[in-house]
Amino acid sequence: MSHNTFGHLFRVTTWGESHGPALGCVVDGCPPGIALTSADIQAFLDKRRPGTGKFVTQRREPDEVKILSGVFEDAATDGPRTTGTPISLLIDNTDQRSKDYSEIAQAFRPGHADYPYFAKYGVRDYRGGGRSSARETAARVAAGAIARKIIPSVTLRAALVQIGPHAIDRARWDWDETLNNPYWSPDAAIIPVWEEHLEAVRKAGSSTGAVVEVEATGVPAGWGAPLYGKLDAELAAALMSINAAKGVEIGAGFAAASLSGEDNADEMRMGPNGPEFLSNQAGGVLGGLSTGQPVVARVAFKPTSSILTPRRSVDQAGHEVDLRTKGRHDPCVGIRGAPVVEAMVACVLADAFLRHRAQTGGGAFVPGGEGRR
Amino acid sequence: MSHNTFGHLFRVTTWGESHGPALGCVVDGCPPGIALTSADIQAFLDKRRPGTGKFVTQRREPDEVKILSGVFEDAATDGPRTTGTPISLLIDNTDQRSKDYSEIAQAFRPGHADYPYFAKYGVRDYRGGGRSSARETAARVAAGAIARKIIPSVTLRAALVQIGPHAIDRARWDWDETLNNPYWSPDAAIIPVWEEHLEAVRKAGSSTGAVVEVEATGVPAGWGAPLYGKLDAELAAALMSINAAKGVEIGAGFAAASLSGEDNADEMRMGPNGPEFLSNQAGGVLGGLSTGQPVVARVAFKPTSSILTPRRSVDQAGHEVDLRTKGRHDPCVGIRGAPVVEAMVACVLADAFLRHRAQTGGGAFVPGGEGRR
Amino acid sequence: MSHNTFGHLFRVTTWGESHGPALGCVVDGCPPGIALTSADIQAFLDKRRPGTGKFVTQRREPDEVKILSGVFEDAATDGPRTTGTPISLLIDNTDQRSKDYSEIAQAFRPGHADYPYFAKYGVRDYRGGGRSSARETAARVAAGAIARKIIPSVTLRAALVQIGPHAIDRARWDWDETLNNPYWSPDAAIIPVWEEHLEAVRKAGSSTGAVVEVEATGVPAGWGAPLYGKLDAELAAALMSINAAKGVEIGAGFAAASLSGEDNADEMRMGPNGPEFLSNQAGGVLGGLSTGQPVVARVAFKPTSSILTPRRSVDQAGHEVDLRTKGRHDPCVGIRGAPVVEAMVACVLADAFLRHRAQTGGGAFVPGGEGRR
Amino acid sequence: MSHNTFGHLFRVTTWGESHGPALGCVVDGCPPGIALTSADIQAFLDKRRPGTGKFVTQRREPDEVKILSGVFEDAATDGPRTTGTPISLLIDNTDQRSKDYSEIAQAFRPGHADYPYFAKYGVRDYRGGGRSSARETAARVAAGAIARKIIPSVTLRAALVQIGPHAIDRARWDWDETLNNPYWSPDAAIIPVWEEHLEAVRKAGSSTGAVVEVEATGVPAGWGAPLYGKLDAELAAALMSINAAKGVEIGAGFAAASLSGEDNADEMRMGPNGPEFLSNQAGGVLGGLSTGQPVVARVAFKPTSSILTPRRSVDQAGHEVDLRTKGRHDPCVGIRGAPVVEAMVACVLADAFLRHRAQTGGGAFVPGGEGRR
Repeated sequence: MSHNTFGHLFRVTTWGESHGPALGCVVDGCPPGIALTSADIQAFLDKRRPGTGKFVTQRREPDEVKILSGVFEDAATDGPRTTGTPISLLIDNTDQRSKDYSEIAQAFRPGHADYPYFAKYGVRDYRGGGRSSARETAARVAAGAIARKIIPSVTLRAALVQIGPHAIDRARWDWDETLNNPYWSPDAAIIPVWEEHLEAVRKAGSSTGAVVEVEATGVPAGWGAPLYGKLDAELAAALMSINAAKGVEIGAGFAAASLSGEDNADEMRMGPNGPEFLSNQAGGVLGGLSTGQPVVARVAFKPTSSILTPRRSVDQAGHEVDLRTKGRHDPCVGIRGAPVVEAMVACVLADAFLRHRAQTGGGAFVPGGEGRR
Repeated sequence: MSHNTFGHLFRVTTWGESHGPALGCVVDGCPPGIALTSADIQAFLDKRRPGTGKFVTQRREPDEVKILSGVFEDAATDGPRTTGTPISLLIDNTDQRSKDYSEIAQAFRPGHADYPYFAKYGVRDYRGGGRSSARETAARVAAGAIARKIIPSVTLRAALVQIGPHAIDRARWDWDETLNNPYWSPDAAIIPVWEEHLEAVRKAGSSTGAVVEVEATGVPAGWGAPLYGKLDAELAAALMSINAAKGVEIGAGFAAASLSGEDNADEMRMGPNGPEFLSNQAGGVLGGLSTGQPVVARVAFKPTSSILTPRRSVDQAGHEVDLRTKGRHDPCVGIRGAPVVEAMVACVLADAFLRHRAQTGGGAFVPGGEGRR
Repeated sequence: MSHNTFGHLFRVTTWGESHGPALGCVVDGCPPGIALTSADIQAFLDKRRPGTGKFVTQRREPDEVKILSGVFEDAATDGPRTTGTPISLLIDNTDQRSKDYSEIAQAFRPGHADYPYFAKYGVRDYRGGGRSSARETAARVAAGAIARKIIPSVTLRAALVQIGPHAIDRARWDWDETLNNPYWSPDAAIIPVWEEHLEAVRKAGSSTGAVVEVEATGVPAGWGAPLYGKLDAELAAALMSINAAKGVEIGAGFAAASLSGEDNADEMRMGPNGPEFLSNQAGGVLGGLSTGQPVVARVAFKPTSSILTPRRSVDQAGHEVDLRTKGRHDPCVGIRGAPVVEAMVACVLADAFLRHRAQTGGGAFVPGGEGRR
Repeated sequence: MSHNTFGHLFRVTTWGESHGPALGCVVDGCPPGIALTSADIQAFLDKRRPGTGKFVTQRREPDEVKILSGVFEDAATDGPRTTGTPISLLIDNTDQRSKDYSEIAQAFRPGHADYPYFAKYGVRDYRGGGRSSARETAARVAAGAIARKIIPSVTLRAALVQIGPHAIDRARWDWDETLNNPYWSPDAAIIPVWEEHLEAVRKAGSSTGAVVEVEATGVPAGWGAPLYGKLDAELAAALMSINAAKGVEIGAGFAAASLSGEDNADEMRMGPNGPEFLSNQAGGVLGGLSTGQPVVARVAFKPTSSILTPRRSVDQAGHEVDLRTKGRHDPCVGIRGAPVVEAMVACVLADAFLRHRAQTGGGAFVPGGEGRR
C-alpha cells in the first residue's frame, strides 16, 4: 500500500485519470503458468461498466481491456499463460466529455476531493475528478480478475444489503438472487422499495448511500500475517481505499460492541476435515489470520457527492460560490461498488495466499493430524 | 504494513510475546533533533498500563520503557535528542504467571487467535496468547509517543462512546471529562450506567465490547497519498490491526449510507485562514487526503474473548473440549483500547506528514493565496 | 526494489517484453508542478535508441514515448505539469521480427537468461529474450528523464572508460569529447583503438565488454539513508540491475583495497561554502551518505551474449545442441549502457532527495553555520 | 532495503550504536518450526568477534547474544523452535571506553561518516562512530545465522583473496585452509606475505584494504526476481551496505569487460540432474536469476579510516584541524569482513528462497522433465 501500488507480493499499480487518453494498471508478482486472456478480465469489467442500468451514470464506455505484457502463448500451451513477469493492462477512455467540467475548473465541489487535491498538489486535472474519479476502479476490477485466478478454490461474492436507509431482510438472503437484479440484492422483496427510493432521489437531483457485503468462502485457515499485515487490517485498507467508502467492518463489526462474550466467541467442534465453528461472529478472522470460515466484510458507501442541488463552496481564487454538479453521475455509487469490493478482496486474498506460501510453504496444520497439509 | 512493521517512512517494528522476557519495538525514520526522554514515552504507557482500574486486568506490570538507541545528549543540547537513527525501545515483562495458562496449552480458546496460529505455524507460544496478546499494544503506545513529537501541531484525543449496548449522549460531550474518569468517557452521566453494566458482566464471568472515537485536530489540508495510501485507508488498517477491533469508520461512517447527498457533502465558506467547512460528515478526509477539518474515526471492539463461562472447543489432538478461560483479564478490552487508538492514529499521521513533506516539500496551497505555505 | 519496481518514494514500475506490442513504465511519487512534456523524455530515449551507430543493433525502433497520465495543462500554466499522480509512459514496439527467434524457441542461449527463466517460470516469451531483453532499458531511460527534473541542481554525465581490454588514458579526460563520438569516450585518442577492436570483433562474429563511469555533481552533503538504504548500496543495486552488468564500484572501488589508509582518507579544508575535500577516493559517499563531492561510480558490462560462433548448449527437452545466435545485436552492449547508467543514477538520486527531504525537511548543516540550510 | 531494514520477506531491522547500552536486530518473516538456540547464533558471532587476532581491534566484547522473542519450546519439541513471529536479538555493549573519543567529538575524522552524518542530522553520537560503526555488523552476523537455517541446502563460504596489494594465487585455492588461519586465506603460501605487510602497516600507524570472495553452493536454478529484485542486484546492495565496502562484482566481474563473447558465455551440457555448465564466468547468475552454479561474488574493502598519522580536517565550528584517530582499531577491516559478507549473502539467499516459493510454489523446471520439481 504505497501511493498508487496495492499489495505486497501480488502488487497492483494503477494509473490514469477520468478524462485522460487511457487508464490501466501493472500487475506484478503473478505466479507463472496461469491461463489468462483479456476475455477473462473483460467479464468482470462488464459487470462494473457504466451505462448498464437506470440508476448508474449514462457515460458510455466500452471499457475494453488490452493485455500489453506478461502473458505468452506457444505451441506447448492451449492458450496464453502468465509468464511471471508484469502484466500491463490498458483501457482506453473513449467517452470523455470534458466540456461538462469546464465551468467547475476553478471551484471545489463539496464532498469531492477537489479541494484537498488543490491544497496538496497545486496542479490538478479537474476534468471529471481526474485521478480521484471512481473511473479508476476499472483498473481495480481488472486486477481482481487476475487475482481470482491465483486462488481458484476461493469463491467471492458481494451483495448490496442497504441502499439509503433501506436495509434488506437477512432472513430472505438468496445469493442467486444477486445475479437476477441490477442492484446485487440478495433479497428480491426489497427491490421495489429501493427502486422507489432511487427514483425519488433521482427526481430530487439528490443521491444516496449504500452498504455492500462481501463473502469469501474456501479460504483455508492460516492466511494473514500478524500483526500489521493482519488479514482484517489488509481488508480494511483495501476496502476503505475505494472511492466513497466511509466504513469497514469484519464479521459482527460494530454490532460486536453490544454482544456478550459468550455470544461473540464462536464455539468449535471437530468436523471431518478439521474444526468447525458453530457461529461466525468473527467473520472468518481471528488474530488477523483466517479461520477457515467464510471471510465476511461490509463497506459503507456515502452518497454520490455530485448532486444537482446547489451547494455553497469556494474556488481557487478564494471566492465563495454556489455550485451544482452537472455531468453524468450515479445517484448511488454503492451499486457499482459491489464488483469493486469483490476485486479488492480478491487482491488481498491472492496476496495473503502468496505471503502464506512464502513463509510456511503453504497448507495448514490440522488438529489431530500429522504436520502440514 | 508488512508483518510486524507498520508505516512507510515512520516505521515501527514491534516484537515480543505476552510471557517472554520482554517486548519492544524499533522506531525507524524518526527525524533528527527531537527532544526525547523515556519519561516522554512513559507518560503514555502509564495511561494504558494494566492494574489501574476495577474493570481492567489485575496483571501488575510496571511497563517501564528503556531507550536503547537512537538518542544522544551532548554539551550543545539541553537533553537527549533523536539522532535520526533507529530508536530501540524495550519493556521487560515482570509479572508472567505462566502457570495460569498451562492447562490450555493444547486447547484453542474460542474467540482467540489460538487455532489459526496453530494452523498457520504449527508451533505457538500459548502462554497468555503469546504474540497475539494485547500486551503487544504497549509497544504501539510507546511508538505513538514518539510519533506525536513529530507532529506537535496535532492534538489527538480518544474517548469511549459506547460500552456494551450503552452509547453516550453526544449532546453531553465534554473532552475534559475524559480525563476525569477511568473509562475515557466524554459524558459524565453515562458512567453509572456503564459501571452497573460492567459489574453485571464481571459477576457473570462474561465480557463486553466498546466503541472508541478518536479526533485529531490541527491536521492541515493535503496529508495522505492517494490512491492506495489514502489517509483513511491507512487509518483503517492501523485501527483494524489493534487486538479485538472489528470495525472502523471515518466521519459519518456507516451512517453515511443513510444520508442524502445534500446532507453528506460538507459545504465550504472562506475563513480568515482558508476554506472552512460548515459540517464534517467526511471526518476530515476527502479523496484520501486531509481537508484541514478534524480527522474523526471510530473503532468497534469486540468483547474480551477470555470468559469464565465454559465454551465448546477442540484441542490440538483433535479432541472436543469444554473450556473456561481463567487468568487475569479485562472484562472490556475496549477501555484500555483508547490510548492504543490514539497511538495508532499518531503513527499514521506522523507517517503521512513525512510522506507529504517528501513529495511536496510540505505546506499547502491556500485558495486565493500565492504558492505553497 | 521489488520485482519490477525500483525506488522507495520515486518509484518506477516497468513492464513489457522485447517483442510484445509495447513496453513502458509507471512513475509514481513524482512531485507535482514540474514542467514535463514527452519531448523532455524523448531527448534521452534518442540517445539510447538502437540503429544509430555502426556497432549497435540494426533494429530500427523510433522509440516514441507517449505520456498517458500524470500531467495536466491548464490556463494557469505555460505547458503540461506533473500533478503528483502516476505518470504512465508507453513506447510501442514497431520492429518486431519474431521469426528471427523461432529456431531458438526451445534452446537456451549460453550467457542469456533463457535457462533460468525456464527453470523458474516454466513458461517464457523466448522472442528476443522476452522480459530479459535489454530493450526494457528504454523504460529506465524514460523514467530517468523524469528523475532529472526533480533534482535540477545535479549534473549527471556518463562516459565509457574501457572497451574490451582497451582502457582510456584518464590524463586525456575531456567531458565535452563524450558528446563528439558515438562511444561516449572522454578520450579522443582511444577511439581509433576501439574502432579497430570493434571491427575485429564484428568480423569474428564475436562481442566485447566495456566499463562505464558516471559522475553526478551538485549532490549536496547528506543524501542517503543508512544503513540499508545507503546511497552507495542503492547505486550498486540500481547499476547491477542493468542488463549485462557484472560489477559496480564507487570512487576508488576495487583499487581501494591496495591503497594505504593515508591515501584513502580524503582530507578536508574549509572552503567558502563549507568543507572541501582534497581528494575523492570515496567517490562522494561516506557511511552511505553523500559528502558534497561528485558521486562517482563505475559499471562493468560483460560482452553481448549473442554471438555468431556456435556454442554448446541444451534445450527444453533436455537435448544437447550447438547454438549460434542470429538476429540483430550490439557487439558491445556497454556502448548503449551509458545512457542507462545515467538514468539509473538519476532515479537513485531523485529518490534519495525525496527521502532526505522527508526525514529532515531538506538542506544540510554546515560547519560553523547556524542550523540547517 | 529501507533505512535500517534489509530484505523483503526475510526482513532484518538492526539498531544500536557503538557505545550505547546495546545493539541488536529484529528478524521478521522467518518460517516457523526451525530449531534455533542462541548457541546457533553465537557460533557465527564468535567468528567475527574482535580481540581474537593480532591485527584486529583490541576492544574486548564477549558479544553474547540473547534471544528475546520469536522462539518457543514445548513438550512436543526437542528444543526451542521458531514460531514465525519476530525474533528479537540483543547484544550488550560491555567495553565502551567512550573517553577515547572525547577529543574528536567536534571534529570530522577523514574517511569516516562523521561529516555527512553531521550535515544530514545535525545531532550525532560521535562515540566510536555511533551508528556508523562497524560494530553494527554484529547484528548482521546474528541475522545471517538465522538465515542459514532457512536454506540448509546452501553452503556458504568466504575467503580473503587480497590484502593491500597482495593477491592470493588462485591455483593454490584450498577452502579448508580458510579455517586454519586468522585471515580466512584459502592460500597458505600468501600468509607470510600478508603478515609482513600487516606488521609494516601497524608499525606505520597506517591501515590497508582487502578483497573478500564469497561462494554459495547448493543454490538451485531460478532464485531471484527480475528486474529490480535481481539476485545480483540484491547481492550488490547487501554487500555494498557493509562498512568500508567500495566495490562488488559477480562472477568474472570487472574482468568480464575484457573477455570475448565466446569466453564469457558459459556453455552447457546435460548432466544427470539437469544442465551443467562448463565454466562459471556468470558467477551463478544470469538475467538476475540463479543458474544452479555456485553463486560467486567479491567485495572490495577500503583501508580502515582510523589511522595514527595526522590528517587535515575540519570541525563542527568550521575550524581547520589536524586529526589523528586514536582508539582501538583494526588495521585491516576486511579481515573481519569475511563473516559479515557470508551473513549478508545468507540473508539475500534466504529472502530469495522465500520470494521464489511465494511466486512459484518452489522448485524448478528441469529440461526434459515433467513440470516443476
